[in-house]
Amino acid sequence: MKAFVYRGVNLKALEDRPKPEIQAPGDAIVKILKTTICGTDLHILKGDVATCAPGRILGHEGVGIVDAVGAGVTAFKVGDHVLVSCISSCGKCEYCRRSMYSHCTTGGWILGNEIDGTQAEYVRTPHADTSLYPIPPDADEEALVMLSDILPTGFECGVLNGKISPGSTVAIVGSGPIGLAALLTAQFYSPAEIIAIDVDDNRLGLAREFGATQAINSSDGKAVDAVKTMTEGRGVDTAIEAVGIPATFELCEKIIAPGGTLANIGVHGKKVDLHLEWLWSQNIAITTRLVDTVSTPMLMKTVQSKKLDPTRLITHHFTLAKILDAYDTFARAAETKALKVIIEVA
Amino acid sequence: MKAFVYRGVNLKALEDRPKPEIQAPGDAIVKILKTTICGTDLHILKGDVATCAPGRILGHEGVGIVDAVGAGVTAFKVGDHVLVSCISSCGKCEYCRRSMYSHCTTGGWILGNEIDGTQAEYVRTPHADTSLYPIPPDADEEALVMLSDILPTGFECGVLNGKISPGSTVAIVGSGPIGLAALLTAQFYSPAEIIAIDVDDNRLGLAREFGATQAINSSDGKAVDAVKTMTEGRGVDTAIEAVGIPATFELCEKIIAPGGTLANIGVHGKKVDLHLEWLWSQNIAITTRLVDTVSTPMLMKTVQSKKLDPTRLITHHFTLAKILDAYDTFARAAETKALKVIIEVA
Amino acid sequence: MKAFVYRGVNLKALEDRPKPEIQAPGDAIVKILKTTICGTDLHILKGDVATCAPGRILGHEGVGIVDAVGAGVTAFKVGDHVLVSCISSCGKCEYCRRSMYSHCTTGGWILGNEIDGTQAEYVRTPHADTSLYPIPPDADEEALVMLSDILPTGFECGVLNGKISPGSTVAIVGSGPIGLAALLTAQFYSPAEIIAIDVDDNRLGLAREFGATQAINSSDGKAVDAVKTMTEGRGVDTAIEAVGIPATFELCEKIIAPGGTLANIGVHGKKVDLHLEWLWSQNIAITTRLVDTVSTPMLMKTVQSKKLDPTRLITHHFTLAKILDAYDTFARAAETKALKVIIEVA
Amino acid sequence: MKAFVYRGVNLKALEDRPKPEIQAPGDAIVKILKTTICGTDLHILKGDVATCAPGRILGHEGVGIVDAVGAGVTAFKVGDHVLVSCISSCGKCEYCRRSMYSHCTTGGWILGNEIDGTQAEYVRTPHADTSLYPIPPDADEEALVMLSDILPTGFECGVLNGKISPGSTVAIVGSGPIGLAALLTAQFYSPAEIIAIDVDDNRLGLAREFGATQAINSSDGKAVDAVKTMTEGRGVDTAIEAVGIPATFELCEKIIAPGGTLANIGVHGKKVDLHLEWLWSQNIAITTRLVDTVSTPMLMKTVQSKKLDPTRLITHHFTLAKILDAYDTFARAAETKALKVIIEVA
Repeated sequence: MKAFVYRGVNLKALEDRPKPEIQAPGDAIVKILKTTICGTDLHILKGDVATCAPGRILGHEGVGIVDAVGAGVTAFKVGDHVLVSCISSCGKCEYCRRSMYSHCTTGGWILGNEIDGTQAEYVRTPHADTSLYPIPPDADEEALVMLSDILPTGFECGVLNGKISPGSTVAIVGSGPIGLAALLTAQFYSPAEIIAIDVDDNRLGLAREFGATQAINSSDGKAVDAVKTMTEGRGVDTAIEAVGIPATFELCEKIIAPGGTLANIGVHGKKVDLHLEWLWSQNIAITTRLVDTVSTPMLMKTVQSKKLDPTRLITHHFTLAKILDAYDTFARAAETKALKVIIEVA
Repeated sequence: MKAFVYRGVNLKALEDRPKPEIQAPGDAIVKILKTTICGTDLHILKGDVATCAPGRILGHEGVGIVDAVGAGVTAFKVGDHVLVSCISSCGKCEYCRRSMYSHCTTGGWILGNEIDGTQAEYVRTPHADTSLYPIPPDADEEALVMLSDILPTGFECGVLNGKISPGSTVAIVGSGPIGLAALLTAQFYSPAEIIAIDVDDNRLGLAREFGATQAINSSDGKAVDAVKTMTEGRGVDTAIEAVGIPATFELCEKIIAPGGTLANIGVHGKKVDLHLEWLWSQNIAITTRLVDTVSTPMLMKTVQSKKLDPTRLITHHFTLAKILDAYDTFARAAETKALKVIIEVA
Repeated sequence: MKAFVYRGVNLKALEDRPKPEIQAPGDAIVKILKTTICGTDLHILKGDVATCAPGRILGHEGVGIVDAVGAGVTAFKVGDHVLVSCISSCGKCEYCRRSMYSHCTTGGWILGNEIDGTQAEYVRTPHADTSLYPIPPDADEEALVMLSDILPTGFECGVLNGKISPGSTVAIVGSGPIGLAALLTAQFYSPAEIIAIDVDDNRLGLAREFGATQAINSSDGKAVDAVKTMTEGRGVDTAIEAVGIPATFELCEKIIAPGGTLANIGVHGKKVDLHLEWLWSQNIAITTRLVDTVSTPMLMKTVQSKKLDPTRLITHHFTLAKILDAYDTFARAAETKALKVIIEVA
Repeated sequence: MKAFVYRGVNLKALEDRPKPEIQAPGDAIVKILKTTICGTDLHILKGDVATCAPGRILGHEGVGIVDAVGAGVTAFKVGDHVLVSCISSCGKCEYCRRSMYSHCTTGGWILGNEIDGTQAEYVRTPHADTSLYPIPPDADEEALVMLSDILPTGFECGVLNGKISPGSTVAIVGSGPIGLAALLTAQFYSPAEIIAIDVDDNRLGLAREFGATQAINSSDGKAVDAVKTMTEGRGVDTAIEAVGIPATFELCEKIIAPGGTLANIGVHGKKVDLHLEWLWSQNIAITTRLVDTVSTPMLMKTVQSKKLDPTRLITHHFTLAKILDAYDTFARAAETKALKVIIEVA
């Protein structure tokens, strides 16, 4: 089968690989229909992700059809249309029982990282019963690709952790795909204000279209003042960090109101300065989270009931044969204005 | 009246001062019976607290008898025995309505800081109806002095914010008065393990007496390993920082388990390093809080029902005339083994 | 001044009464601009409310201008535009501190019940600092009359108690003003389905306009089956009782899914049958609540940010001189299609 | 093997039955070491449990050794010492993912009810990975038999649902084994007062030994007055119903304070009167629950750390050969003073 393979730092190829096979009773083989590319895939290609060795088929998102199941699989059968979660969860370990699938002792984020992933014609998914989700017959399957990772990530790490509530004031720092995913799902809770902050006017324009009530271009270094002005000096109830660098995290520290929450989504490569010399008395919470995808069934319901339209995040389409072009388009997002790109596999 | 006055950096005196008078309809004048000294008072004397000007009567803790009330006071009358909260709250502003009395727009921590405090024969308490608490007739009033600040601080900032629950594993970094206050109140929730960490063996001995199941002297720099060994490599569900320096905060970062909470109590003078390069994916929460004293009525019930014995924190007694000695004893705690010292005023 | 007075069972009159005066330091006198009529006022007229004696000026809703304040009032001054809450709260008692203003030991629902109310040119409001709310300069004051009682009631007793969450399934039994208030505010949390149930097709039509995704006329006695069919046999996550009779409460018992919540809003005059012989094992919660109006500031923000349009509940307007007509129109709602009627006082 | 079998209304026998075999990949066969009898077993014998057909081996509690595992079992192997949960949970269905194992679509309470149970030398346990719990090497296995059902039931249905918190006031109506289980675990949260109510002075004596601060014999019909007197007229924050008849449920309705919770544990055979004519405005919650056993791992930690001593519930011991005597002793608890009886199987 065709598969997109990480070959070492800045090396990648579309290769022929053998079709995967059932290895454990809980496995399923899924024939991929559509997949996509995540910012994390770009990190892997740069050599930033130590757990991902050269030779790995990338990809941890997608929808497909069950092609084979192990002896222990009871929730799915061959032919079922399924959503592949970016997180594999056994459903049995202490973390899974606490709904922390991201820390599953035999799962977590392994697809396209520690084991072969979804940017291929077939993928083997461990713990299939608790890591795949049935797709309703009338669903828009392409839209659901956004439920493998980006929408649960924005929702769980940003919106749920950020405790967004009706009438509250929210700032989302970063208007890339993940910030926009948080923006879309933040509106489930009817905050009064959502302030989008970014350095790219195009993305800020998108943020406004997607529901931001205010937009601030922070390139002039005056974002803190602007937020304080908008909030009568108080700051925001929730600040969502959706970039992953020290400057944006510190911006969040400076705009959070007493009693507020700073919900980190960004994948950070460096430590940051935590200004406890003023924050110690501010009654705030700072949260971190690798997505657990526990909200996937709920997000599916909001899509089916038209409360959430994931297709707004999809900007480009490619076939698997053109996946190198897809990576190129996605990597040059500032120019191409790409958010999420769909790879049509079958 | 006699009053203990901050006179500038490292300058202090017991002076004669006029008895305070009602200034606003919500004020009360309280004749102090007993007060105590807080670590924060030592910070003021070092010149670390910019809001506290020379000439200020210190003290934000104590019990006493209502001596006069303003026209708007309805909950107390002359002669009532009352506990003075370290936090003044109006009960009306947005923060007070959200139970964040520490950020009351006309109150918060003002006693012995922005206005004259309790280390005197009388004190004026603003917002008396919502900042004083009635003392039950059969109560041990000296014990209740511990409910002005130290016990609600340990409980709210450490135990409640730290989400301690039955069967959980807790580490408390720092076994001074505030760490011990957290230790005493942590046991309200029956954690399976409470690991005390300090550099002073005397204080660790006290921690064991007060209920710690394990004690680690961290002077050898191996506390992280020790905690990991005690927790089968997992770390603790709750880490309480009760010191206020970068080293102890970073220790907490290193021992927190996935899904855990780092509850900061310490008053920090410097920023700390937050290691998001590994914590971003650990599903943790970090909380800060200036005590709100919202738990005072509840703590009073636990004292009255013998679930909590605040007198364990009291090591020394002095009269107001000897308050300079009391400060000296409290400041040299390592030698004197002082925890909290009672100043008998009347 | 002119005032609408309850004169005994089925007796009412628009009378001349002396303008009220400040009686306590916490009082304010409010010149009423607009008020409205509540279903509870009709109950009083029928003699159902034992606490309300003949001679009482009715009304517990309204907006106005502060005309005088007592010596202890600090949050308002003469000339301020204010919303009058249906609940008076002292902000000091144990219940107020727990945000249960409805059970304030010196307040609660007393306006137009135990003391004279708002259907008059002036009203005396006790505990003014914590029972009045400032109106923003640019607000639609008529819209805010809906925030005195009906919207916080639907929101707190129905939506908050009912734990409505994104993607969930909700049934609201009763599409009168209070059921519609719950329906409007339920949408703050983006449930997937909201099923309106009533016996009046006109009201069900309104419910659909207001956001219900399904409507069931329960006159045929088959509502339970209909709900079960809509929910694949499972029942609803939240059932809101917004009528107040045994039949509708029992309907809610029958449609609640395992793990669901039955949130009662209705004012009941009789006991109901609780079918514990099947509900004991269903992991449900049943909640009751007299509105606390703790959500008033939050609802104000949602109105100001256009997330909520209270004017949709207003169907008729009358002057105070015509208040007897207003009562007649409101009492014959099935014919007149009245929801809330505005009484313009000044 | 020997097994205790329900043979129809009031008919029971110790019989020879074939040893069970693996039927599905998720099954395990457990050799029972110790089991016990539940009040529900007595209900079955009376013919009250329609789902349990004659011929059924009873019992849903016990500890044992894994004797065989199906192909899909990964968490246990032959020879492991395990606790059998009374609730079988698949870990995969919507209810299991929401931690509502009691409503598992292919599990729930089936052992000794819809399938053969643990009062036998061997039992087949479906969904073994998520329905058995590993026993630590140093554990008191007999004590852990109390964790199969009675302690999680008292804790989850009574204590957790009842939201018991430090300093609160609790009433437990019924001091049989289940009420005492609630009493033991209520103390995890340090309530100020626990009032035990029963009609049997022997059981009330036990309740006091187990930690009740007050005991009321309700046979004189004056329990409501007594509770009101003890609580200054207010009532209790949490009322736990641990009997299962209308009279005790209504007693709970009458003693619950505004803002309180009535947590039902009792298995009810009849509807009860819910007095909404006064409760509608009392801001209370009523909860029901079939135990989910989600707290089993946590309870195991509290036993291992000596916060909970389950052996206090064990009053008698019998061998499996004498199980008919054990049933007799358990059924005549008023005379025999039996709480839980241990059946030693191997």
